[in-house]
Order: sequence, then structure tokens, then C-alpha cells
Amino acid sequence: MTRQASLRLGLVQQPCGNADPALNLDRSVRAIRDAAALGARLVVLPELHLGPYFCQSEDPRLCDLAELIPGPSTDLFGALALELSIVIVASLFERRAPGLYHNTAVVLERDGTLAGCYRKMHIPDDPGYYEKFYFTPGDLGFKPIATSVGTLGLLVCWDQWYPEAARLMALAGADFLLYPTAIGWNLDDSREERARQLEAWVTVQRGHAVANGLPVISCNRIGHEPDLSGQSGGIQFWGNSFVVGPQGEFLDRADDQEERILMVDIDRQRSEEVRRMWPFLRDRRIEAYGDLTRRFID
Amino acid sequence: MTRQASLRLGLVQQPCGNADPALNLDRSVRAIRDAAALGARLVVLPELHLGPYFCQSEDPRLCDLAELIPGPSTDLFGALALELSIVIVASLFERRAPGLYHNTAVVLERDGTLAGCYRKMHIPDDPGYYEKFYFTPGDLGFKPIATSVGTLGLLVCWDQWYPEAARLMALAGADFLLYPTAIGWNLDDSREERARQLEAWVTVQRGHAVANGLPVISCNRIGHEPDLSGQSGGIQFWGNSFVVGPQGEFLDRADDQEERILMVDIDRQRSEEVRRMWPFLRDRRIEAYGDLTRRFID
Repeated sequence: MTRQASLRLGLVQQPCGNADPALNLDRSVRAIRDAAALGARLVVLPELHLGPYFCQSEDPRLCDLAELIPGPSTDLFGALALELSIVIVASLFERRAPGLYHNTAVVLERDGTLAGCYRKMHIPDDPGYYEKFYFTPGDLGFKPIATSVGTLGLLVCWDQWYPEAARLMALAGADFLLYPTAIGWNLDDSREERARQLEAWVTVQRGHAVANGLPVISCNRIGHEPDLSGQSGGIQFWGNSFVVGPQGEFLDRADDQEERILMVDIDRQRSEEVRRMWPFLRDRRIEAYGDLTRRFID
Repeated sequence: MTRQASLRLGLVQQPCGNADPALNLDRSVRAIRDAAALGARLVVLPELHLGPYFCQSEDPRLCDLAELIPGPSTDLFGALALELSIVIVASLFERRAPGLYHNTAVVLERDGTLAGCYRKMHIPDDPGYYEKFYFTPGDLGFKPIATSVGTLGLLVCWDQWYPEAARLMALAGADFLLYPTAIGWNLDDSREERARQLEAWVTVQRGHAVANGLPVISCNRIGHEPDLSGQSGGIQFWGNSFVVGPQGEFLDRADDQEERILMVDIDRQRSEEVRRMWPFLRDRRIEAYGDLTRRFID
């Protein structure tokens, strides 16, 4: 298959907090159609975009939200990918077996097939983000997914803090890193703390772009979602979805409020140029990296 | 030994390109004295600060510049550390044996002893930075150096592009990462390219701070140094030395021109707070990281 010199990406920053799942789905579908109409050949959605971020509290009944993969959502997004002849990255709450659930991102190929999926490997657990209750850590490893638009280093949210995940995807041939995500502020934190958190989140991902010489695509939700347990004031999802090139340079970035599709033409040649100029992969001291598999070196 | 709640750091951004080694040494010594007078308990100097960055060309005669460790420079800086009762991080061209040289950073304890040294592990080689000709890659690994002011994750220049190096130092108990460095622009590059390079360099190191929840100290030289071989227009060292906290937040940053000592009080407690809030080390998937020791996963 011939590759064009650039890839037009559509990144969907949207709210996902409507209590009615049908309305969230409609919103995602409309955005995908809009992005395709603007020429996107790859469309990326935020983490768990079919509903409110339910991990703000621990409630076994919420496991009813999970679905099989393949299942109704992959059928629906697969049909849409086929109709529009695009690649779609969606993010689902996967039911694998009774009591066994994953936070799983899926890639639908433009022929409607499921190109692959990635089960979130690093699972957070901190106030407001009780994911360890719901999600079993992924067991598929860090394997990029080959598609007609390139090899996708698909990771999810908390993974974005881990240079190991980014590196393993790059070493396995990823052309891009993609992070569907759902992250925001606790409004009880000070303005200064919130600013540091947002900037840290952007910076560490831009760092992955630099260290690995490839573009990074990070797609977050927006809007306030209440904590139904009443323990906290909920989460103000901070948006700021962005796309950076292989030197970490911004190609586009949203703010913390706007519902917007970021349309970005990614230059496929630029990674090659940057990696020739900065051949970091050449000089890795792999014989000295063994202790990276230790919990702590004590 | 009791630790104060904060550590006062003096970071010396200076030119090092004087052809007379005595003048470069004088400049470093004066800066150390000035930093100590301002209360610094730890002083950091740029990479190979005793002379021009000689790796712009490959010339065997330049190996005459190398010295033993311990040797005259560690004696001198050790005596200064003792006199001022501070810890000094210096950077030397190490002669280990005939034909065997390293790019080595040394730590002098406030009692005048050599607390430890780090031999640069990742060695660059690209136009203007022909380090593979001079420096044998380090064989001491990524081992932090315990001192009276904390455990120093001392790395050098090209190492700064490698998340593996930062992580290994953090896992081995480093309180801070320190990068003496010598990096600058090729003035033949466009303004845009130069801006991307500088920003990438800052960003990837801030990313190490975020990923590991510790402060990062990066100390660069300034000034233009000609390429004596005449192959290029030389290097404009870009300064921009900086100190960031454990969320990658700037504590201070120099510009690309000024000769300046950055005096920064580093809050020792902040790493503990940040790592509790963002317990990234808790969730590393160490059983899935084995392939980090592969050159490429193909």
C-alpha cells in the first residue's frame, strides 16, 4: 500500500459525561463523521468516551457498563470505519470474563475489521481514579498495532507517565504514540498545583516524543463530572489534547474548555530526519539496562 | 548527619572556551567561591569546563589534555571543597590508560575527599560532537553518588536524552539528577530548527523529573567556540541551564547569553509529596519491561 507523505489526523476533544450512553455515543459518531469530512484518515477519541468516567467511586454494579471485544461497540465503530474508509481508535470498558475487566483501546481498520487492541498496562489508583478496582492490568504487553495509516503505538492515560511504555512501543516499530486519556483537576487543589499538574502531564509526553523521535498524540476529555459517591467535588477534565512532532514541537493543542476536533497533518518523513540527526537508538547502553526490570535497586 | 529541609544549590553557567586553560580554571574557581559565599552547599559546573569543547574535531594530540583521576584537578577542587565546606561537581577529561579516555564527572565532598565519579555512559557522535573518537563509553553503570548533601544521580550531556539513565539513577536512590553539559547550536541551522532543538533538550529533561518525581539540574556552557578544523562555523553553546522540581516545574532558568550563577533552594520534602500523590514507581510493569535490553524489537 502506498503511503502519502503526510497523514491527516483528527483528534476529538469532547465531553463524555452525559448520563445517557446513547448521547455520548452520538457525540462520538458525529465527531468521527466530521473529522472524516475534513479529510482525516485516522480519528482518535478520548479514554472511555462512551460515558462518564465511572472510576470516581468503587461500585460493582458499574461493571454492567463493560462489553465484550469484539462486541457491539467494535461492530459499530468498525462499520463506521468501513463506511468512511478511515482508521478509528476507540476506548472501551472490556468485559473479558465474569470478574475480569480491562481498560482497552481498540483500532478499527478502514475495511471494518478490528486491527488490534491494547489493554492498559499501568493502572492508576488515587483519589478520584479508583481504576485498580475495575481494571485488571493488561496482559498483551506493549505491542504496536499495524494499520493502513501506520503502526500505532497505542497506550492509555496512566501509561503516559511511563517512559518504559513509550520506549517499548518505539522499539517495536511504532510510527506514532497515541494516548486516549481521561485526566483532570481536583478543584480543591490550588491554582498553582493545578498548573503544575497540567504542565507535567504535557511535558512528560512531549519528552517521550523527543526521546523516541516520533509524534505523540494525546486525546483527553473536557467538562466537569461529579463524584456520585459524594466523596469529592468531582473532576474537571482538563482537555489540552495535543499533537507534537518528533522533537516534541506542538503541531496543535486545545485548551481546557473547547469541544474541538484537532485536524493535524503529520509529516511522515520528519521522524526519519530527526532520528538521523539525533540517533538516540544507536547509543542505548542495552547491556547496562538490565536493572530496569527491578522494582527498586536496594 | 542532619539534613536541612532545603538544599541551596549553585549552578554555574559560564563560558569555558578560553584557549588558556589557566583562565578557564580561574573562572570556575571564582564562580565556586562566589556560589559558596551566597550560601551554596552544592556547586555544579558545566561539562569539561576546564577548556574549549575540543570534540569539534578529531585530533589525537588533544588527548594530551586528559588527566588522571584522582589527579591535579580532583586535588584542586577537593581542596576547595574542604576550604569552603561544600560539595563540588566538576567534569573532567579522564586519562585512564594510554589510549583509554573517559568523559568523567567527579564529586568532591566537603571534607575534600573524592566522593565518587561517573563515566559518561552514552557517547554522542555527530557533526561538531565527535566524542566517540575520544571517549570510551563508561563502565561504572548508573550508580548515584552518596554525599553529605544527598544522593546525586550524576549523568553527563548526551545521557540527558535517555529515560533509561534517569530511571536507573532514580531506582538506585538518587535524590536529584544532575547533568553537566556542553550543547549548542550550529548557526547554519534555521532559527526554527534551533528553537526546536533547545526546547526538545529542556523538555526531555523536565520529563525525567516528572517521570521520576525528583529535581533535575542541568548546567550548560555559553559562548561561541570556533571549529579549529574549519569544517564548520563552530558551536554557539546555548546556555539555558535550569533547575526544575519533581513535577518538572522551573525553579530557575538562565538565558542563552548570560554568565550567571543560578542560586536555587531545593525543597527536599517536595519529592516525597509528589511521589505520594503520583506513585509512578508503584505501578511499573517490571515483568513486561524485559525487552528494554534489546536493541530493537524486530
